[in-house]
Amino acid sequence: MNMRVKGERAFKVVGTRPPRPDGVDKVIGRALYGADVSAPGMLTGHILRSPHAHAEIVSIDTSAAEALPGVKAVITSGDFGVPEDSALRDVQDHCMARGKVLYDGHAVAAVAATSPAVAKAALKLIKVEYRKLPHVTDVDEAMKPDAPVVQSGLVHETVAPGFSENVTSYCEFGHGDLEAGFAKADRIIERSFTTAATHQGYIEPHACLASMNADGKADLWCCTQGHYHVRAVCSAILGMEASQLKVTASEIGGGFGGKTTVFIEPVALALSRKSGRPVKMVMSRDEVFRATGPTVATSTDVKIGMTKDGRITAAEARLRYSGGAFPCGTVEMGAQAAFAPYDLDAVRTYGWNVLTNRPKEASYRAPGAPQAIYAVESVVDELCLELGLDPLDVRVKNAAQKGTLSSYGPTFDDIGLMATLEAAKAHPHWSAPLGPNQGRGFSAGFWFNFGGNTCVTLNINTDGTVSVTEGNPDIGGSRASISQMAAEELGVPYEKVRTVIGDTTSIGHSDITDGSRVTFAVGLATIKAARDAIQKMCSRVAQIWGIDEEAVVWEDGYVKPASPNAGDFKPMSIEEIAAISFQTGGPIAGHHEVNAEGAGVSFGVHIADVEVDPETGATKVLRYTVFQDAGKAVHPDYVEGQMQGGAAQGIGWALNEEYIYGEDGRLQNPGFLDYRVPVASDLPRIEPVILEIPNPGHPYGVRGVGETSIVPPLAALSNAVSRALGVRMTRLPMSPPTILKAVSAAGV
Amino acid sequence: MNMRVKGERAFKVVGTRPPRPDGVDKVIGRALYGADVSAPGMLTGHILRSPHAHAEIVSIDTSAAEALPGVKAVITSGDFGVPEDSALRDVQDHCMARGKVLYDGHAVAAVAATSPAVAKAALKLIKVEYRKLPHVTDVDEAMKPDAPVVQSGLVHETVAPGFSENVTSYCEFGHGDLEAGFAKADRIIERSFTTAATHQGYIEPHACLASMNADGKADLWCCTQGHYHVRAVCSAILGMEASQLKVTASEIGGGFGGKTTVFIEPVALALSRKSGRPVKMVMSRDEVFRATGPTVATSTDVKIGMTKDGRITAAEARLRYSGGAFPCGTVEMGAQAAFAPYDLDAVRTYGWNVLTNRPKEASYRAPGAPQAIYAVESVVDELCLELGLDPLDVRVKNAAQKGTLSSYGPTFDDIGLMATLEAAKAHPHWSAPLGPNQGRGFSAGFWFNFGGNTCVTLNINTDGTVSVTEGNPDIGGSRASISQMAAEELGVPYEKVRTVIGDTTSIGHSDITDGSRVTFAVGLATIKAARDAIQKMCSRVAQIWGIDEEAVVWEDGYVKPASPNAGDFKPMSIEEIAAISFQTGGPIAGHHEVNAEGAGVSFGVHIADVEVDPETGATKVLRYTVFQDAGKAVHPDYVEGQMQGGAAQGIGWALNEEYIYGEDGRLQNPGFLDYRVPVASDLPRIEPVILEIPNPGHPYGVRGVGETSIVPPLAALSNAVSRALGVRMTRLPMSPPTILKAVSAAGV
Repeated sequence: MNMRVKGERAFKVVGTRPPRPDGVDKVIGRALYGADVSAPGMLTGHILRSPHAHAEIVSIDTSAAEALPGVKAVITSGDFGVPEDSALRDVQDHCMARGKVLYDGHAVAAVAATSPAVAKAALKLIKVEYRKLPHVTDVDEAMKPDAPVVQSGLVHETVAPGFSENVTSYCEFGHGDLEAGFAKADRIIERSFTTAATHQGYIEPHACLASMNADGKADLWCCTQGHYHVRAVCSAILGMEASQLKVTASEIGGGFGGKTTVFIEPVALALSRKSGRPVKMVMSRDEVFRATGPTVATSTDVKIGMTKDGRITAAEARLRYSGGAFPCGTVEMGAQAAFAPYDLDAVRTYGWNVLTNRPKEASYRAPGAPQAIYAVESVVDELCLELGLDPLDVRVKNAAQKGTLSSYGPTFDDIGLMATLEAAKAHPHWSAPLGPNQGRGFSAGFWFNFGGNTCVTLNINTDGTVSVTEGNPDIGGSRASISQMAAEELGVPYEKVRTVIGDTTSIGHSDITDGSRVTFAVGLATIKAARDAIQKMCSRVAQIWGIDEEAVVWEDGYVKPASPNAGDFKPMSIEEIAAISFQTGGPIAGHHEVNAEGAGVSFGVHIADVEVDPETGATKVLRYTVFQDAGKAVHPDYVEGQMQGGAAQGIGWALNEEYIYGEDGRLQNPGFLDYRVPVASDLPRIEPVILEIPNPGHPYGVRGVGETSIVPPLAALSNAVSRALGVRMTRLPMSPPTILKAVSAAGV
Repeated sequence: MNMRVKGERAFKVVGTRPPRPDGVDKVIGRALYGADVSAPGMLTGHILRSPHAHAEIVSIDTSAAEALPGVKAVITSGDFGVPEDSALRDVQDHCMARGKVLYDGHAVAAVAATSPAVAKAALKLIKVEYRKLPHVTDVDEAMKPDAPVVQSGLVHETVAPGFSENVTSYCEFGHGDLEAGFAKADRIIERSFTTAATHQGYIEPHACLASMNADGKADLWCCTQGHYHVRAVCSAILGMEASQLKVTASEIGGGFGGKTTVFIEPVALALSRKSGRPVKMVMSRDEVFRATGPTVATSTDVKIGMTKDGRITAAEARLRYSGGAFPCGTVEMGAQAAFAPYDLDAVRTYGWNVLTNRPKEASYRAPGAPQAIYAVESVVDELCLELGLDPLDVRVKNAAQKGTLSSYGPTFDDIGLMATLEAAKAHPHWSAPLGPNQGRGFSAGFWFNFGGNTCVTLNINTDGTVSVTEGNPDIGGSRASISQMAAEELGVPYEKVRTVIGDTTSIGHSDITDGSRVTFAVGLATIKAARDAIQKMCSRVAQIWGIDEEAVVWEDGYVKPASPNAGDFKPMSIEEIAAISFQTGGPIAGHHEVNAEGAGVSFGVHIADVEVDPETGATKVLRYTVFQDAGKAVHPDYVEGQMQGGAAQGIGWALNEEYIYGEDGRLQNPGFLDYRVPVASDLPRIEPVILEIPNPGHPYGVRGVGETSIVPPLAALSNAVSRALGVRMTRLPMSPPTILKAVSAAGV
């Protein structure tokens, strides 16, 4: 379903659904993922990991491992320098512990050997003497003044006193007079919520192949969402110049934010440097869970005041996020997003980042926002229940719109929240009947969307076909949408365009594929690069015709005389111009490099129906509908896929997924058997409804769509379960034991 | 030795000799050549070849081969279409015979199988019924009216009557009144010469890996001098659009012109299309000799008139070149080059291309020129001998110079012939004493040098290092010289720049790496791309400083205020500008696409001393000196390498290398044991003397240097042997049997 909201230009290619260019490769197994390349003389790299949640490394003896035949290199943190930059140091220390191990699974040494068997035997020969330290894995526990300190000396100066040294940062957003606002309320609810850390659950584990030469030049093949970032980080850690490291991004078997940093790449490079041989590393699933980057675990207090006719008078939230053993800034995004769907006179959010003995958080689709909005939308829902108001009407009454001063600062331009609310209200789902033990939940969601640095080169091939080179790994169909935008602008069929992702030496720096930025920013740069090529084609044709450049125009893929006065010339197509380009000055290309601005924020609302089995605590999702403003939907199939995929992941997060740490601080469920993501049979068909409110910051009105869809499901499910049970749920995931416990505690 | 001839700008990086960027990779075996990549599920492709020089293919039965377990595809010419374009049809028919086999080794079928053993067994199961036809492999025989016709219907309309249908083209160049010129001569010599076909002798056989998907997209990895040409030809043969075929050029283990076309690539793609699997093909050495492209075999008549004081009054040459079984245009380049070193009032050359039952000629360093100049310089030498003149003085007296109307049409600009002649005259080699059975030969040489279509993208990385992407496989050190020119223009150290060769999707069309064009044309485009980036950096800094773009200048790698009036600002380096580029608009890159003109012709002269053993006919090269105008020598090591390498190959051509066909039309020496290239012990140290006459068509004065050096050795050696023996040699190679026969015929 695709609802056109406003008048727009008539597109020919944009908005259609051509076959995905990577589809056949992936279906038949020919696509090359991170683990799918090899090099002559290649070694296999394996990592020794800490069995302790927190311990001092007293000594590491690698001599027996080094003596084992087939072992070509053994490294520890001593093989790296100590970066001055603290962020870089954190990345490096996460890849290889220095002095202390900070979490179960933290890397302490690595070997490169001629076979996996030899490598594993070598790991067993490495003797590490640990001195165990007290640990803490819970965010609230970690804030207490007497908590074990994960890393000391990092306290942010503005952090309020009374907390332990684990609190590393503080932030605050909002405006208006809270006290006066709450005074106007007929009802105030204040509640606390927790969410567990979850993992992105990508199917493909991290994998790379590193090859460094004696002359210091290196090649790195890896699955990543941002090979320029990998280049920057790895070259800095290895002490190389960026130009000496060529990074190629493989096909990617899922990332969702989790592949925006490095875990094994610097290790593989260091092993290659030491051994003089190419080194391949592939993480096991156990390693992925224990030592990559899950989400933050959170603890949040929300207080909202409402009049009896549903107007929110004041709203406040306190967010405590733990991003693991290293400082992280995710709480800031949560604090900004928390009340973004609302037009509020008085609003304030406060955020604290807290260290715990867990692996460092990595991004996961709209990082920080789902947890904050979960808490806010739960309280709004409870207020609606208590005041007997329709949750949708209350959202409409308080909805952020064009001109709203947002809760985090900026004033909104054209946004689609109201359109999604109206679409939800009109949708049959909202009025469908419910049976016993069933409940309907609703939530709004929000994500900022990014722009960022982007480079595109567009070559007009001599047969008139078009090659587009960009620098962003395709995690969600961007090769198709970029080709569509190039085809649209150039007036050629989609099939004439092929978009590829260049390696770091082929195309200029491009920011990570994250923040739902690629279709927006790379699309923008592609359109501009196409216009650059068009300008050159116009100039060539003017030269051929012997008239001024101003006397020709571009129209529907042809250069034409601008007016009858310009002369009587037959319009020339791209094919014709390309065919004779060697005679008119050489090959024709368009280029654009930009730090793109104007990404345009994104809103979506979800409706979830559930049935909860009161005996087992099991929740079945009966019906699920997603309404989202996609700006202009370039390739609606992919947009719908993003909306469905985000909802599916959010449902898993809401109902089952969680990192479970034991008393010993060790992760108890590092595998897909015990860490339970939803499978197809767990889910109904998720119905996507695309709203198209053009983004004024993009020539075609495009905005990012990849992240917003994971934001509402947490609250939508929690509200649905709470209404089905008649018990307010305040903890995620709502796994059967959690539900049974809540029911029992409420005495229903 | 490096002689600076004229004043020039002071270079900092250009003219130095930094380590080669591909050196370590190649020395330690990590460089990936054509055969060095693999793909999951890959098959091996093998070709069945004709045992006959000329035969009709009555039928091909592939059923038994197809039924063999492990065979996944069998193809014949029927698996290809019949291209309308005759040049394309020739390329295709050379790859896979259609209707007739035209030479020994001509491909008739191919199989893709799971192992080489299965593939070879399958080849034996293919039943081909041939009807043998009369054949001809000698160029003079093939011109006779009653010669077997290799291909009919190709006769060029202006070809003089009286020849067989094998003559496919005719050309004519020159100016002035020949009759009057010869009338002024004191001595006229007219002689006929022959040269054998030779092979480029690259160490790496042709190899490729092709992978075509069910959706029609394909990837091709191959060793080639021009992957855009491979893309154009293969996509046309396979009926694909160029944008759907991505071609990546591997490292190349020698090409010298022989890897400027395709032999196995369309076959591998067709096998992959049919089998649905990746297919790797690697030629054997036998296949390389029998079925790739050697040089033309030639037969030439030269007539020159000279006054007794050494002035040439008229000159005429008739060139008959055989490029094998398909039409080729090499004779035209020979006819143009023949008298290029001379300033002549009356000159005429005539050229005929002739079909023979041999594989189609491919380029080999200055294609066509060595054979033509061999004949001309032999006659000039004989005239000098007969008239008692110094051969060097005679060249000086008749030398082409700036303003000379060349024998092939254009008027020369700044050229370096006179400088090389003067350098040779002054060199101790020219006056060194000679012993018994020793002779000294001299020859001038010439090559046009190409410009051509070229694309360069230059990215300023965020750490201030520089990545250059270009589209020309590096066959002679271009990555180093391009990096040097980028570093020079940008004012950064050489080590800050890394130049890579992009695949066909990463950078726009670039003509083949041939015609000594790369250092000139890619260098030109790199300098222009660097200037584009510089302009952008100036604009960014002006924006930062809040002053007009006109108020800043670029100087030595810094943006500075243009004058004290512009303001008091600290100059900004590339590093500083790059570090904040995200805040000033995004990444910075420079681009240039051009069909480069102004390559500038190239001259060189060689002196060779030999000693001939009168008993065995064996020739030993005692001393060899090369004088060549390199324009500005960007990386003198590589320039000297080109001069030495061309001379070495020319010496092999002159003394030993030849394609030997038997009476049955089959090649008798398809291997390095019987096709004898010079080895290190066969050669003295070849001394290179670089002259630097700046090319006015290039910002740094660069001209091509790769080909000219193979032109003079044929005549230099022939003149040296002739003078040592006192017998004029007129046939190449001057292998011992040939020398003994000539001596015996002359009765010396």
